[in-house]
Amino acid sequence: MKKVAVIMGSDSDLKVMSGCIKKLREFGVPFEAHVMSAHRTPAEAMAFAGAAAESGFGVLIAAAGKAAHLAGVLAAHTVLPVIGVPIKSSTMDGLDSLLSTVQMPSGVPVATVAIDGAANAALLAVQMLALSEPALADKFAAFKAEMAKEVIEKDKNLEKEIEKL
Amino acid sequence: MKKVAVIMGSDSDLKVMSGCIKKLREFGVPFEAHVMSAHRTPAEAMAFAGAAAESGFGVLIAAAGKAAHLAGVLAAHTVLPVIGVPIKSSTMDGLDSLLSTVQMPSGVPVATVAIDGAANAALLAVQMLALSEPALADKFAAFKAEMAKEVIEKDKNLEKEIEKL
Amino acid sequence: MKKVAVIMGSDSDLKVMSGCIKKLREFGVPFEAHVMSAHRTPAEAMAFAGAAAESGFGVLIAAAGKAAHLAGVLAAHTVLPVIGVPIKSSTMDGLDSLLSTVQMPSGVPVATVAIDGAANAALLAVQMLALSEPALADKFAAFKAEMAKEVIEKDKNLEKEIEKL
Amino acid sequence: MKKVAVIMGSDSDLKVMSGCIKKLREFGVPFEAHVMSAHRTPAEAMAFAGAAAESGFGVLIAAAGKAAHLAGVLAAHTVLPVIGVPIKSSTMDGLDSLLSTVQMPSGVPVATVAIDGAANAALLAVQMLALSEPALADKFAAFKAEMAKEVIEKDKNLEKEIEKL
Amino acid sequence: MKKVAVIMGSDSDLKVMSGCIKKLREFGVPFEAHVMSAHRTPAEAMAFAGAAAESGFGVLIAAAGKAAHLAGVLAAHTVLPVIGVPIKSSTMDGLDSLLSTVQMPSGVPVATVAIDGAANAALLAVQMLALSEPALADKFAAFKAEMAKEVIEKDKNLEKEIEKL
Amino acid sequence: MKKVAVIMGSDSDLKVMSGCIKKLREFGVPFEAHVMSAHRTPAEAMAFAGAAAESGFGVLIAAAGKAAHLAGVLAAHTVLPVIGVPIKSSTMDGLDSLLSTVQMPSGVPVATVAIDGAANAALLAVQMLALSEPALADKFAAFKAEMAKEVIEKDKNLEKEIEKL
Amino acid sequence: MKKVAVIMGSDSDLKVMSGCIKKLREFGVPFEAHVMSAHRTPAEAMAFAGAAAESGFGVLIAAAGKAAHLAGVLAAHTVLPVIGVPIKSSTMDGLDSLLSTVQMPSGVPVATVAIDGAANAALLAVQMLALSEPALADKFAAFKAEMAKEVIEKDKNLEKEIEKL
Amino acid sequence: MKKVAVIMGSDSDLKVMSGCIKKLREFGVPFEAHVMSAHRTPAEAMAFAGAAAESGFGVLIAAAGKAAHLAGVLAAHTVLPVIGVPIKSSTMDGLDSLLSTVQMPSGVPVATVAIDGAANAALLAVQMLALSEPALADKFAAFKAEMAKEVIEKDKNLEKEIEKL
Repeated sequence: MKKVAVIMGSDSDLKVMSGCIKKLREFGVPFEAHVMSAHRTPAEAMAFAGAAAESGFGVLIAAAGKAAHLAGVLAAHTVLPVIGVPIKSSTMDGLDSLLSTVQMPSGVPVATVAIDGAANAALLAVQMLALSEPALADKFAAFKAEMAKEVIEKDKNLEKEIEKL
Repeated sequence: MKKVAVIMGSDSDLKVMSGCIKKLREFGVPFEAHVMSAHRTPAEAMAFAGAAAESGFGVLIAAAGKAAHLAGVLAAHTVLPVIGVPIKSSTMDGLDSLLSTVQMPSGVPVATVAIDGAANAALLAVQMLALSEPALADKFAAFKAEMAKEVIEKDKNLEKEIEKL
Repeated sequence: MKKVAVIMGSDSDLKVMSGCIKKLREFGVPFEAHVMSAHRTPAEAMAFAGAAAESGFGVLIAAAGKAAHLAGVLAAHTVLPVIGVPIKSSTMDGLDSLLSTVQMPSGVPVATVAIDGAANAALLAVQMLALSEPALADKFAAFKAEMAKEVIEKDKNLEKEIEKL
Repeated sequence: MKKVAVIMGSDSDLKVMSGCIKKLREFGVPFEAHVMSAHRTPAEAMAFAGAAAESGFGVLIAAAGKAAHLAGVLAAHTVLPVIGVPIKSSTMDGLDSLLSTVQMPSGVPVATVAIDGAANAALLAVQMLALSEPALADKFAAFKAEMAKEVIEKDKNLEKEIEKL
Repeated sequence: MKKVAVIMGSDSDLKVMSGCIKKLREFGVPFEAHVMSAHRTPAEAMAFAGAAAESGFGVLIAAAGKAAHLAGVLAAHTVLPVIGVPIKSSTMDGLDSLLSTVQMPSGVPVATVAIDGAANAALLAVQMLALSEPALADKFAAFKAEMAKEVIEKDKNLEKEIEKL
Repeated sequence: MKKVAVIMGSDSDLKVMSGCIKKLREFGVPFEAHVMSAHRTPAEAMAFAGAAAESGFGVLIAAAGKAAHLAGVLAAHTVLPVIGVPIKSSTMDGLDSLLSTVQMPSGVPVATVAIDGAANAALLAVQMLALSEPALADKFAAFKAEMAKEVIEKDKNLEKEIEKL
Repeated sequence: MKKVAVIMGSDSDLKVMSGCIKKLREFGVPFEAHVMSAHRTPAEAMAFAGAAAESGFGVLIAAAGKAAHLAGVLAAHTVLPVIGVPIKSSTMDGLDSLLSTVQMPSGVPVATVAIDGAANAALLAVQMLALSEPALADKFAAFKAEMAKEVIEKDKNLEKEIEKL
Repeated sequence: MKKVAVIMGSDSDLKVMSGCIKKLREFGVPFEAHVMSAHRTPAEAMAFAGAAAESGFGVLIAAAGKAAHLAGVLAAHTVLPVIGVPIKSSTMDGLDSLLSTVQMPSGVPVATVAIDGAANAALLAVQMLALSEPALADKFAAFKAEMAKEVIEKDKNLEKEIEKL
């Protein structure tokens, strides 16, 4: 199976991105995680992106906040799909990160998920890899079924919660 | 090769989404296009999404404006990756469409591209399919190279443009 | 009297929606509450909405956050009026929930109340049911009078509060 | 059948609100339309709202732009449900009208539809009145079916449109 | 001297508006403070505004949050200048209150100050009354001079603060 | 009667501010109009503001767009009330002008009206001057009555307009 | 004198950036202009930025729209000051470009000017170069004086304009 | 070496601006820090800015919140480059400060950094001064290299952090 690379613009993003890492583990998807910055270590980021396809990666996930250029910069250097996770920072409630990640010019798309949407980034990577890994597609279908079951369980418990109000 | 489905919430979205259709043709990706609405023909939309994987589709592209639920509703009914194109409508400059498309809850991602980012939706679908279609990956690399060449050409012509100012 | 259905996209919404439940109880309006998700249990949500009118419901209240599709998805499957409560989540201060709920396309309205406006959702349902329940209209009028009395009481107490400043 | 009142803050709102008037006519709902302003003719607006229930009205629809207080002011003076239509004005793209209409304090709800959502205001009024008018509920169901049929028709025509691209 | 009326939409606004009360006291401006709601006690609010000029008031200050209609509703019923204080509530960071207060239609102005700008509302009232009260104008000039002195004092102390860094 | 000064940051603001000039003429309020810029002619702006009270002015009106500092800068140099008109420019739909004008720090208020609210700036100035000019208060009351009459007239004509739909 | 480099993300930005080019010519500042894209020709952009200091450039000006990464990417590869011009594109009114340009992480500043603020980018470059070019500082002072004179001239003409109203 | 002036609109801004002071010390750049307000001590602010170039300053840094006029007002009185730091205040998440600082009219630029971007303001000043101080340019290059090294170090430690998840 192709690997997923999880690139964070700062090690402080790990608090949010642990949700991504755990989801990839849960699905048994091989991955590598790195701290690389579009602005502080641009050479490392580009070298990594430029070699990613040959290194056996299938999908890149990039998480960054504020003027979040990381996903776009990686996408500029690879033919692989790049998933962007806008990280909420201390100002602007994540709107800056979202717009900086999603509003890419024609020719260089970034597959953007919700602000702080770390788990969904992993799931989207799983969906992409599952296109050529039937077993992964089955796991994803099972995950969806399990998720539905949990909601149905919560629905059953709701009556008791409401009685307490 | 797996097919791409391009679903529009309204036939008026074709004006923007023609950019997606043309790009898919350019890459020789087989596709089907439909008008289906999360709110007006929910049964059709869900039936389509529910059967999409078995029908040989690999990626769904959903374009909708305002309270743009289409991509999310399709994603709820399939294991395939769903790409969302927020369409700018007559008010709110596309912000409503963007937030309605991208801010998906954990468990059901939508790979969102820029507001009116029709061409990028096609390119992202190409990148996903290219994971198991090496020829498509080569085409994408060629596309990137061509795009760079055009920019370099424009750079050369800039001097003349500037002299005219 | 027709029943009200209170549907939450997640059990975590109960913290806000308890204000709705209490208000319905206060007015003696029969209700059912459920956790159902437009994205995680779409089949359950649609089946419920599709059968709601026949099951004796008069109004549906849907509470959801972020890309809040729940109210719209329910509205797509019923002729009953659907009230949407945008729930503030951890990012975007509720703007995403509000726009996803209120900006519905022509043909499928959602009666949207304020962000986290749980009590008002109940009151709006009461106003709708009161159209054919004169006793409920009287209760609502009494509620308005009581509310006014409380404000007038607070006005009387203000002087003392201000002396303490 | 109870009547619907359509109140506009300015006669310039008729351009948008004609969509509401036509929809009410289409459903055969009796209505009265008025220009009344929360700020310029507050006495008239309040007198109207205060007497609306007794005058045989069932639902009030209020359309206003900018600091759109009209729906809220009417709601303050009646037990009837009030539907608010935020009208987009020359600045702020309708966000001011939307927030002024929807963010009502606890106790006084306004059922808000989309910015410039005139037709949906009429449809929501129809849904409310249909709670005690089975014939109207049937008409609404037929309207929904017709709307679906139109989308399905557009879906069929899409192929031809796409060939022209 | 003419009196100032300070009207709050809710007694919870006193926490912010105490800054206004204290400033009026500091300037020796006679005032009355009330809790009155545009939506919960509209009759009281309008009666007050309608009689305010004759009752010897010169300026009305209105503080309200969310869909903040209070200042506009008071302005509709008086010829006196009305100052609006948008109160930040639990969602939307005060933007809803600001737009609801400031975006008044032509013909009915509200003199809007900053979000939670309680002290400035008092100062603006003082400036208005000072137009016909030379002693108040002198006090205001002295206040400005004192304010400048405090900043200059802080500037002198800054060096010491910076040494500690 | 004290004079009103209408200061525009740019002569291009006259297109909007003509609404202010005409309203002042309508009320017979003496005024002077100037183009002065907080950034391009700061010395002139400050000298004017600093001398305004002694020169017989009662109220200053400042209109500016983008980073609209003009009203704040004038307010820093006078004890007179300053009314700010945020002018919509080619980007940001007037939000930048509004926030730059209204969000003044404690101690230096600016009485802000709506974006492009030129007429209301004049009316607010009239209301302020009317505090010590009973004749002006009467004119303002007459203006309000006239405005109401016009709305009532429009209400009467609405029926005919609606028949044409 | 050190040269200024004006880099545009797209040749379509020239329409706005001609204001920058003209201002640089007006001040006699030597410059080079290029079309280079952070996403389409990242290698060219970085090579240029990496060599800029040695090539005799003193300041880089970068203009880009949407997810405007160009200024940040250039800044990552040079020690020279980089001025960013956020270009308004067809959606989001320039807010995406502004936030993507200005919200840079600690360590890599971009000196951001107003949306479409092309002339100011040139003037800021002039101010920077003037730190070591006294003649340029004199030219800038003369420019400021000329600008003030023009405003004063417009102020004189205003009276005539107002008479025509 | 020319000096940098760090001007804060309020002494409460020091909490954020200490990041600027420390960075200037780190680079050995001589500086003066002051509390001066565009609105409370305009005379002092202007006198300072007007004399800054002759006093040996090379760059001014201005930090202010809300309707942040300080940077613009200083820029109006000097030929030196002015760097603006928008300070996040208690409402609007810094958007008001950002727009008030960056959206300057043509002719008077402010080099704006991120909201609360104190360290970057210092670094930008360093970059400007480095244009004529080769030693400072070398220090800046070393700072960039050090910053990259830290990120690379964090990248190495990430594996261990991830194992703990």
